[in-house]
Amino acid sequence: MDKHIAPVELAKAYRLLNHGPTVLVSARHAGVDDVMAAAWACALDFSPPKLTVVLDKIAATRTLVENSGQFVIQVPTAAQLHLTHKVGSESLAEVPDKLARAGVELFQAEGFDLPLVTGCSAWLACRLLPEPHNQQTYDLFIGEVIGAWADSRVFRDGHWLFEQADPALRSLHYVAGGHFYAIGEALDVGGGE
Amino acid sequence: MDKHIAPVELAKAYRLLNHGPTVLVSARHAGVDDVMAAAWACALDFSPPKLTVVLDKIAATRTLVENSGQFVIQVPTAAQLHLTHKVGSESLAEVPDKLARAGVELFQAEGFDLPLVTGCSAWLACRLLPEPHNQQTYDLFIGEVIGAWADSRVFRDGHWLFEQADPALRSLHYVAGGHFYAIGEALDVGGGE
Repeated sequence: MDKHIAPVELAKAYRLLNHGPTVLVSARHAGVDDVMAAAWACALDFSPPKLTVVLDKIAATRTLVENSGQFVIQVPTAAQLHLTHKVGSESLAEVPDKLARAGVELFQAEGFDLPLVTGCSAWLACRLLPEPHNQQTYDLFIGEVIGAWADSRVFRDGHWLFEQADPALRSLHYVAGGHFYAIGEALDVGGGE
Repeated sequence: MDKHIAPVELAKAYRLLNHGPTVLVSARHAGVDDVMAAAWACALDFSPPKLTVVLDKIAATRTLVENSGQFVIQVPTAAQLHLTHKVGSESLAEVPDKLARAGVELFQAEGFDLPLVTGCSAWLACRLLPEPHNQQTYDLFIGEVIGAWADSRVFRDGHWLFEQADPALRSLHYVAGGHFYAIGEALDVGGGE
């Protein structure tokens, strides 16, 4: 694992998603890895930390999630703009070498048989909490976060450091049609910790 | 209604939330209005547009949503930083003049008996799709968007214009402890519409 990657305590894992970044969803089953982009991922609870993510029925990653019962939500960076758009535009079902074409490299965290995408700023390993009605009716999946890590150059001691870090590490916030925003300026009301 | 506010076609309403802003949730029942802040709101479907929002059991706004079956999700601006933090820090149950103290002013859209917060950049009027299991187990509420509007100075023709608009109109992205980020620079991969 890259020397900048450090574990995040689970009680603060929600902060990795709280500001609403577009994420990459990855999963592994029976020797197959896939990665997709998702703008519709959201924190759901603090402790134990949970999150929601919307996975369309045509997404190959969804099948891997359903079959393995686990997945990773990770926060891509401005440097991964094209990678993010590419894995969000092609399906493994149609493009078997999708990951290589998008420049995706994977690594593992010790103790987790899950594919993590190299170069992201944060990773949340999740156990699927099966909710068949939500999955079928709304394509809505709920995960419990069982492991979290971040790049300590941009998230440290429970805080994002976008205002100090390399701008290439900023999170991406997708709108539509290939149009993203990077996260911007810090605004503080004070009184925090 | 302010002359800058224009309807947004429902098929593009998801774009108002797609970049993950912190939102204000408002609701009305039996003559009582309330407004709260929520970082955990997310688009769920394109057409008909749906969204999710997490409403804690202690939130007075939640009771209004449950009793009226409708609510508004709106996108506050950088100019509303303190208002957003304030309505997210106090409860109507304990502070009956909470809205006045936070400087919240409300208006209505014709045909909707719902309280909209003046000065936001976008508004989504929602009909609650009752899902008792999600509401009780996860505090997770699903709404169908039945009306959408935006400030045409910052969202027009289905596109956010943060890169051209007054920086006071940027969306807010909350982390924790009074610490927000404003949305930042536009990054485009091209090929969009």
